[in-house]
Amino acid sequence: MFGAGDVRIEEVPDPSIIDPTDAILRVTRACICGSDLWPYASMEPSETGQSMGHEAIGVVDDVGAEVRNLKRGDLVVMPFASSDGTCEFCREGLPTACVHLGFFGNIGMNGAQAEALRIPYADGTLFPLNVAEDDALMPSLLTLSDVMGTGHHAAVVAKVGPGKSVAVIGDGAVGLCGVIAAKRLGAEQIIIMGRHPDRIALAKEFGATDVVSERGDEAVERVRELTGGFGAHSVLECVGLHQSTDTAIKIARPGGAVGRVGVPQDVVIPASEPAFFNNITVGGGPAPVRAYIEELLPDILDGRIEPGKVFDRIVGLDEVPDGYRAMADRESIKVMVQP
Amino acid sequence: MFGAGDVRIEEVPDPSIIDPTDAILRVTRACICGSDLWPYASMEPSETGQSMGHEAIGVVDDVGAEVRNLKRGDLVVMPFASSDGTCEFCREGLPTACVHLGFFGNIGMNGAQAEALRIPYADGTLFPLNVAEDDALMPSLLTLSDVMGTGHHAAVVAKVGPGKSVAVIGDGAVGLCGVIAAKRLGAEQIIIMGRHPDRIALAKEFGATDVVSERGDEAVERVRELTGGFGAHSVLECVGLHQSTDTAIKIARPGGAVGRVGVPQDVVIPASEPAFFNNITVGGGPAPVRAYIEELLPDILDGRIEPGKVFDRIVGLDEVPDGYRAMADRESIKVMVQP
Repeated sequence: MFGAGDVRIEEVPDPSIIDPTDAILRVTRACICGSDLWPYASMEPSETGQSMGHEAIGVVDDVGAEVRNLKRGDLVVMPFASSDGTCEFCREGLPTACVHLGFFGNIGMNGAQAEALRIPYADGTLFPLNVAEDDALMPSLLTLSDVMGTGHHAAVVAKVGPGKSVAVIGDGAVGLCGVIAAKRLGAEQIIIMGRHPDRIALAKEFGATDVVSERGDEAVERVRELTGGFGAHSVLECVGLHQSTDTAIKIARPGGAVGRVGVPQDVVIPASEPAFFNNITVGGGPAPVRAYIEELLPDILDGRIEPGKVFDRIVGLDEVPDGYRAMADRESIKVMVQP
Repeated sequence: MFGAGDVRIEEVPDPSIIDPTDAILRVTRACICGSDLWPYASMEPSETGQSMGHEAIGVVDDVGAEVRNLKRGDLVVMPFASSDGTCEFCREGLPTACVHLGFFGNIGMNGAQAEALRIPYADGTLFPLNVAEDDALMPSLLTLSDVMGTGHHAAVVAKVGPGKSVAVIGDGAVGLCGVIAAKRLGAEQIIIMGRHPDRIALAKEFGATDVVSERGDEAVERVRELTGGFGAHSVLECVGLHQSTDTAIKIARPGGAVGRVGVPQDVVIPASEPAFFNNITVGGGPAPVRAYIEELLPDILDGRIEPGKVFDRIVGLDEVPDGYRAMADRESIKVMVQP
């Protein structure tokens, strides 16, 4: 990406092992992410550009001398962040706070919308899969690299549990995975908040029980009506804008929790007073998706959840620029890239 | 209180039972609260004034026809908020979200810096004590009406537990009780952040292991140094200002939690991005002190905690205006009122 709206496919040198803990990943599936649309909308022009993409499944093509748990030919999930797997935070289950954290497709890191890329701390970062490369579950497995784990994180932080009422703000791929996660964790009522008919239909298929298409004060009013006047126990904020975060706090029930996974577009969290006087907890951040794979994988392998349904378009590398356009125009929910 | 700095002692009609669930409380001990200093600093002049005070121990003087669990002569703790004890939120342990919630010494409610006051929903609100009216534990028992329960709430929301590092922002009575609560819940390291020598000395007596007197960026730097570079697992925000809340988020360890109990003086929560990228949870609000009494009372009765030490001045009703001045001038940590 060379600036807002300026995505190009370029020939670059093949990646190679630099550190002995590196691996080289040959990408078999990648994605365009809702968060890629922020720079697509507003990135300053850049001469060098930024290699994009942070979600992938691929095959290990080479490993450094100190890689222990992976070998050439292994099929793996590449979470959106690299982590060493051994530091205090990784051991605590928060690899997105790893002392060696790196975000793929971000400043200084190569991206996965590519044929191949270098993976730092490969043992900690990559999660080996025991399935065939052309498995029909591939789209769902691919969501473990980000959106399914991120929706799950929002649900965990928002303390979703059996019998709870849940509101999900945002009908993008992460919001839709938030619906799956809420259902999976036992929520009784799941309110999807969005206004795109195709996405709302998928949300209902995933388990949403109610739809709120209003925004701002009207949305707050509608959610209160749907939840006995009090608001939702758990709110999954999957957008990141000032207004959506404000709404998230205002639709939470007293004593409830908001799980934020939309990358914040504002330097403050609004609604400090409603949050305080209603004892609402606001948490969340970059999801520790690497740590969640173990929990979520069996449900995908057994077909209990099908997050891969969020992909409604598959493109080759050459079509990636058009994939960005389609997602930005809300023509597509989520685009899979098949290099 | 008739405006900023304008506290007067007035003769008013005796309170009387209005609803059958009311009781009349004869106040034996009350307090001036740090939160009373906000209106003391900034209240618009008012002709009618506001009856002040929301913390008390007293004796039940009269009960309405529907009061079941209390009788004339009972010694009770009056938490700072009234609650019915039966609604969904009360049953869930969050009486400060009661559907019949009222804040004593606030708009429409009488205050406890008085000889007597009317208590709505007396069965739900008041907590009977099985001790003599002149018991030496009275100062510590009095803190169950607010500051001890509030400090405990900050610690609970900030997920204090065995082995954790804890930072307490604010060396007022609530912050000092936060130190007691952190110690009680097993914290290994307790950093008190404040700059008043008398309060810091008391914090150390209560269990603080480190002192940080800096503010802003320097404070962040100091706490990081004291916590192995990462910040504190749990941060108790006991001030409520923009800067203190900003600092609270910035000194929390990735994956950590901030418990806010200082009444927020700003409509936004600062540091949205550090909170997000470090997966920090921000929670808290008016403490459900009524619900905490059962847990905290035995520790006071057995002398394991002595939160009553925060009182360093006792005044009669006539001296209440000077008590406000003394607290505002930081001459006194917390003033007890003995009508």
